[in-house]
Amino acid sequence: MNLKQLVGIEAATYVKDGMTVGLGTGSTAYYMVEEIGRRVKEEGLQITGVTTSNATQEQALALGIPLKSIDEVTHVDLTIDGADEISANFQGIKGGGAALLFEKIVATYSDKVIWIVDESKMVEHLGAFPLPVEVIPYGSDQLMRKFNEKGLNPVLRTNEQGDIVKTDSQNYIIDLKLGKIKNPTELAHYLTNQVGVVEHGLFLDMVNTVIIGRTEGVETLNPRN
Amino acid sequence: MNLKQLVGIEAATYVKDGMTVGLGTGSTAYYMVEEIGRRVKEEGLQITGVTTSNATQEQALALGIPLKSIDEVTHVDLTIDGADEISANFQGIKGGGAALLFEKIVATYSDKVIWIVDESKMVEHLGAFPLPVEVIPYGSDQLMRKFNEKGLNPVLRTNEQGDIVKTDSQNYIIDLKLGKIKNPTELAHYLTNQVGVVEHGLFLDMVNTVIIGRTEGVETLNPRN
Repeated sequence: MNLKQLVGIEAATYVKDGMTVGLGTGSTAYYMVEEIGRRVKEEGLQITGVTTSNATQEQALALGIPLKSIDEVTHVDLTIDGADEISANFQGIKGGGAALLFEKIVATYSDKVIWIVDESKMVEHLGAFPLPVEVIPYGSDQLMRKFNEKGLNPVLRTNEQGDIVKTDSQNYIIDLKLGKIKNPTELAHYLTNQVGVVEHGLFLDMVNTVIIGRTEGVETLNPRN
Repeated sequence: MNLKQLVGIEAATYVKDGMTVGLGTGSTAYYMVEEIGRRVKEEGLQITGVTTSNATQEQALALGIPLKSIDEVTHVDLTIDGADEISANFQGIKGGGAALLFEKIVATYSDKVIWIVDESKMVEHLGAFPLPVEVIPYGSDQLMRKFNEKGLNPVLRTNEQGDIVKTDSQNYIIDLKLGKIKNPTELAHYLTNQVGVVEHGLFLDMVNTVIIGRTEGVETLNPRN
């Protein structure tokens, strides 16, 4: 079993009957969704899933997990999602899979948030992973210039065919290659205030529990309860 | 000649050969675009227009005004646009025509901004006009609940057929019926920081010149030079 699968299965044990569960997106969340699907089918687990991307929605539907939109529930009990980087003080970068907007929307309305990662995602400071910023296509070149002038090393995300990546909301992703983010709060504030920025991948003070897959086993940390 | 037409024609006199001009959206901006189109055709005026909505783009193209996207120009010399409300200290509400996002993007990259209004738009305090907020559809019901709890009297904008209005970016508009906005800066800060809010219709410290159509004639004010 690989480390992503290990934490995906561990996280699924936090899901109880009757819960409304936010289902994350990405290669680690994939295993969690698979395991919840197995529990629904084999154990008769009764939950309502709220997905964070079209990709996860397809996966959950195929597994027979009952789904609702974030707008059809009063709240979410628990959201389980991956992360691209988690710092020593439990701030995160998300959006490598281009789903940061819906992931942040669902996390915002969740009572508890669990992040599941393999140990490679745990870092001292954020920033080695490029910070994804979802932007409106109209004016995105102007934002690229502005970010460039500010030294944020922006790169417009393209796919393997060289086409511009579009999010589920038909926006673009600009990845900021920062190396090290000295002050995540200040950067988040700057990005939020830029006209044309829809959302950024800094998830600050949002996670309650982090489940880490290490070669020696699963480690669970609870920065917020 | 009605007051909207009066200020539309007056504002067009600010446009000079060689300029890149942001072309606003709405019933007042309409007359300005018409007049610029006339000058292009009859006077050989040479400009590049940058439009703020699909509607204005269609109008400008039909008039033969050369157009570029905001991303194809280095900057905009002058943007002329309408406003739904302008306060005594020249803060504005825009977005009645659902074009606030592109309008704000174009204004952000403009050296000068002129607003053209009839006298009914000039108010002491902002807020009698409902404040438009452009939001991501996913999670918009949750935002409605949150705005409701905060006493912001949100109304999801629908058209005459009762269908939800979609912006040029396929987002929704929530109108906040506030009556009087005590602290526009504080409200702007709150709205900007809500996950799912793409942009809001408060245009603060953005206008250089206001041209007002009054029954006794045109009044021009220059709050910022």
